[in-house]
This record gives sequence, C-alpha cells and structure tokens, in this order.
Amino acid sequence: MDGDTPGQRPSGILFDAYGTLFDVYSLGLLAEELFPKHGAALAVLWREKQLEYSRLRTLCDKYVDFKTVTRDALLHACARLRLDLSEDKCQRLLGQYDRLPAYPEVLPALERLRAHGMPLAILSNGSPEMLASAISAAGMSGVFTHVLSADKVHKFKTAPEVYQLGVDAFDRPAARLVFVSSNGWDACCAAWFGYRTFWLNRAGDPVERLGILPAGEARSMNDLFAFAGLA
Amino acid sequence: MDGDTPGQRPSGILFDAYGTLFDVYSLGLLAEELFPKHGAALAVLWREKQLEYSRLRTLCDKYVDFKTVTRDALLHACARLRLDLSEDKCQRLLGQYDRLPAYPEVLPALERLRAHGMPLAILSNGSPEMLASAISAAGMSGVFTHVLSADKVHKFKTAPEVYQLGVDAFDRPAARLVFVSSNGWDACCAAWFGYRTFWLNRAGDPVERLGILPAGEARSMNDLFAFAGLA
Repeated sequence: MDGDTPGQRPSGILFDAYGTLFDVYSLGLLAEELFPKHGAALAVLWREKQLEYSRLRTLCDKYVDFKTVTRDALLHACARLRLDLSEDKCQRLLGQYDRLPAYPEVLPALERLRAHGMPLAILSNGSPEMLASAISAAGMSGVFTHVLSADKVHKFKTAPEVYQLGVDAFDRPAARLVFVSSNGWDACCAAWFGYRTFWLNRAGDPVERLGILPAGEARSMNDLFAFAGLA
Repeated sequence: MDGDTPGQRPSGILFDAYGTLFDVYSLGLLAEELFPKHGAALAVLWREKQLEYSRLRTLCDKYVDFKTVTRDALLHACARLRLDLSEDKCQRLLGQYDRLPAYPEVLPALERLRAHGMPLAILSNGSPEMLASAISAAGMSGVFTHVLSADKVHKFKTAPEVYQLGVDAFDRPAARLVFVSSNGWDACCAAWFGYRTFWLNRAGDPVERLGILPAGEARSMNDLFAFAGLA
C-alpha cells in the first residue's frame, strides 16, 4: 500500500481540532478563576464527561450537537464536584470554546504546509458554529480547504461515518491522507479506519492499548513535516 | 404503556454485574496492597479505561472480549501512573475479578425476589467465563434464569444489540422488564432502549446529563421491591 510508506507525501492532511490545533489549557485557567482550587479537577472531569456523553449518544443513536454535549458535561461535572454553577459561569466557560488560542507552533506550521501546496482540513466533533468561531478567533480563517464536522452525520468520533467525511471531502483513499490528533484514542481509531495517523502526543502519554498504533508520534507539530514527506 | 406504571410487577428483572451485584471495592484494596499509595488512583483509572476501550472498540467494530479489554486497560493505567506492573501483579489484579464478593444486601435480596417467583438475569459486558467465575465465587449459582454476556453479539454496552439480549431471552418487551444497574450511564442508556430502569446509585452520584432519567433510583437493592411491585 502506498499509504503505508513513511515519509511519502499525502494527498491531504486532516486535523482534529480541540487539543490538537486549539489550545484547551485556557479552559482550566478560567475554571480555576471561577472555582478557585477546583479548576484542574473541573477541567479534567468536564473533558471526560464530554467524551463519554459523545460516545454514549453515538452508541445509542441519540445525537445532539457538541455544544449541547459540552454543556451537559459541564453541568454534570460541576454537580459531581459540588460546585455551584451559575448561568453566568456556565456561559463564560462554554464561551471560552469560541476563544481558544492556537498552540504556539500551529499557525506557522499550517502556513508552511500551505506553502508546500498541501490541502488541509479539520475533522472534529465540534459543531459547525463552534468550529467557525474557534477558527476565526485563532486566526486560521482561510487556512482549511474543508472544515468537517461530525454534525453532518449525527454521530461523534470514533464512529467510522465521521472518519469517512475526510475521505469523501478529499475524494482520496484514507491511506493517502494523513490524520493528526493529540488524542491517542482518536489517532488509534483513525488508524483502524485506514488513515496514516500522526499522534501529536503533546502530553507525553503512554500509548493506548487498543491493539493498533499510530503510524507516527511526536510532541510537536513541527515533526509532522518529516512524517508527511515535506521536510 | 403498562411498563410505565410504577410499582407494576415486571415479567423479569435484569441486573448489571460489576458494581451492581459484585462488589468491586476489593479491586482497589488489592491495587493498594500491590502499589501502596496508588491503589485508589489505579482502581479509578483502570475502570475508566476499561469502559473507554469497550466503547471505542464497539464504535469501531473491533471487538475483543472483556477480559482482554480489562487487561489492556490495566496495562495502560499502570503505564500512565508509572507503576511497574509485573506479570504476577497483573494476574493477581485480573484474577480478582473472579473472586469478587456480592454486596452485603444482594444475596438476601435475590433470594427474596426468587421467593416471589420473579425470573432473574444478568446482562453484562463480562465474558461468559468471567461471569461464570464471579457467580460461583459470590455464591449465586442457580439464582439466574439467564446469564447474558455482551460477548454473544460482539459489542459492549451501550450498543442496543446488547440490551436486546434481555428482550430476546425473556421474550417480553423491554417495557415489561426491569433493568438494574449501579452505573448511571448504563441505567440511562437502558432507559433509552426501553427498559424500566432502576439506578442502584450506591455512590450517591448526581444524575447523568443525557436527557433521560432512570424510572427509579435508590442507594440499596432493598428498595427494588417497592419499585417492582413486590413490597
């Protein structure tokens, strides 16, 4: 398979959004500001519940959009931590999703990829509105050929129908496309689907034990160039 | 719908296994014995990863049995916590799943339900071998009319195909059957499927924000009798 050759130039590169392009660290900072001493725990539990609810709803075919899932997860996380979430605090935390900065190396890396003529896309659980806001706020307007939201198929990752969106948009086999995610589970499941996956392992986490490994792994997006044959 | 009437006698009662019938507390105790000061964190992360892997594999149609998922989750959890898991420690922790005791009120409650002539079943992610060992060790041999494992459909909860196993086994509509789980997510998703669900909320957790509530909730299985019209 062509796509299995490391370093070969792909036909396009797809990026996960939150935690991969958009720096979610500020969610924890705001959580700490609103709930002193509980910000770190809240940010972790909020994220866990967001993923859990997205998966349960997909398994049970009970889709609602990612903004609703994210709000539901925040409500549950605050209840579990016995934090009093006013509507104002809720709106501030949810609104932060529309104001996430890019990770420091991301914008220069995306520009370099575009200078190589590489078509770029986002493939995310985020709703179209969430993604549009985040792209604009992070200064990424006009960077992506495709902004693909799970909302189109009313399922969340890691359903194959979501990963299929990238294949359909680029009209190329998954093995000819690179998929980049900071989430180990996302990288593994995209690899199952057939993408050449690059695990942007920012946190230095151990590999997920799912019986499959991403084709590439690094701590910074700058290592993507060698992986994609663009060094 | 008949099944929506609180207190009406159901045609059968299905129980989740781990955390509902079988007391998983001893997993944390053994983890603490093997990894002093890290037992609680390991038990929590192990369980989280076990559920995550079961859901990801179901979403991606990459089934392996629950024993394998449980082992994979343990390996990852130890790696993340930087705990050195020898094969001996691994086997002891996995083997503990075959030796879980019943929660204190469970055996008397099951016997009372049987005295009422109520058909009982287990509906669990656990593999048939895991369930057979746990049933025997907890002194529940002969109690259940059906022991239903997700292994039969090669998917894990909360896939509808798993919940369907109970309907097929009892040959009754889900609304005529009670489903009991200590996991809020399991109770909610079983309610989506159509069961009259009883959330055995042992931990006093806040409700899951999934847009549906279990029909009943209590801290002890003794409250199941009133819910099932058997008080």
